Amino acid sequence: MKNKVIAISREFGSGGRTVGKLAAEKLGIPCYDQDLIQKIAEESGFCKEIVEEKGEYATHGNWFSGAWGGRDYYSHTIQDNIWFAQRKVILELAQKGPCVIVGRCADYILQDAADCIRVFIHADPKARAERIVSQYGESELAPERRLRDKDKRRAAYYQLYTDKKWGDVKNYDIALSTSSIGIEKCAEIIADLYNSK
Amino acid sequence: MKNKVIAISREFGSGGRTVGKLAAEKLGIPCYDQDLIQKIAEESGFCKEIVEEKGEYATHGNWFSGAWGGRDYYSHTIQDNIWFAQRKVILELAQKGPCVIVGRCADYILQDAADCIRVFIHADPKARAERIVSQYGESELAPERRLRDKDKRRAAYYQLYTDKKWGDVKNYDIALSTSSIGIEKCAEIIADLYNSK
Repeated sequence: MKNKVIAISREFGSGGRTVGKLAAEKLGIPCYDQDLIQKIAEESGFCKEIVEEKGEYATHGNWFSGAWGGRDYYSHTIQDNIWFAQRKVILELAQKGPCVIVGRCADYILQDAADCIRVFIHADPKARAERIVSQYGESELAPERRLRDKDKRRAAYYQLYTDKKWGDVKNYDIALSTSSIGIEKCAEIIADLYNSK
Repeated sequence: MKNKVIAISREFGSGGRTVGKLAAEKLGIPCYDQDLIQKIAEESGFCKEIVEEKGEYATHGNWFSGAWGGRDYYSHTIQDNIWFAQRKVILELAQKGPCVIVGRCADYILQDAADCIRVFIHADPKARAERIVSQYGESELAPERRLRDKDKRRAAYYQLYTDKKWGDVKNYDIALSTSSIGIEKCAEIIADLYNSK
């Protein structure tokens, strides 16, 4: 029997990671987020920082130079190698037992391998901007610019490896706005949905 | 104080209308769907069939000839007149008391006038095709074609009057797939969300 897995995709700054953690706590199941990055680093041999960046974001620059630059027909980029390791780790975790997985195209990777609840978490731009400043501090770039950059690169990465559009409502069983509903209530709805499956 | 209103946008054949009815029943509040069409017909003087068609779907043909055809700067099309009547009726209903409103850009119309829960209901194409055949019977066109046509015209209508993208996850507080979650559970989640607000 396939395990139940909650796969959370989220906009940067939406609080999707916290929603995942809270839902997992309510359900008494593990939530893989930073642990996942550690496991992928071990599997691939790349350092955590590289995995964190290249396992979810298309490289800066245009799509061609970013994703395919330096790749010929027979070779793989670093990004590809991380993708293969990521895929393997996520499939193994889903086989081990029920869990929550945050990000990293888990919704796509687990489409046939788990009884998957595909969740998309978003929030309005103002709430996201405030959240990233309070969570990660100020940076040279304006918060709106940081959000746009992250979203764009996450979407490009997702499109490249899944051939689907990131954030397209059709790819998710449930999509929730934390700025309308609140992080705690979003976690509660997801946990309830998991229990009713 | 603003009334709580659940505004349901839905893909054709997703069961969104039934979700709305069930949620309203659970909450003991009215659900406006066919009643709404009747009221708009009375307000505008157009017959129900015209209101049903032109109050939610862009006219066949291309966007220009459909929406703007025959309109000069100072005059309104039939579609515009129905839009004004529809807007008035929806605002009045939301002022009267808490309710569920299915379709007709209520999410947009009520953005400042009600404490609105904006819902989008969708389903996978196979489930929708089966549903429209069982609900509305066969027609000359294949079900997939009927779905594509309705979606396209609903999206064009929504874009024209709201300047927003229909079905874009960012425009809704919650989006649910009836083919993954089930119609009954979708209604339960929405009713619960309404009660927690």
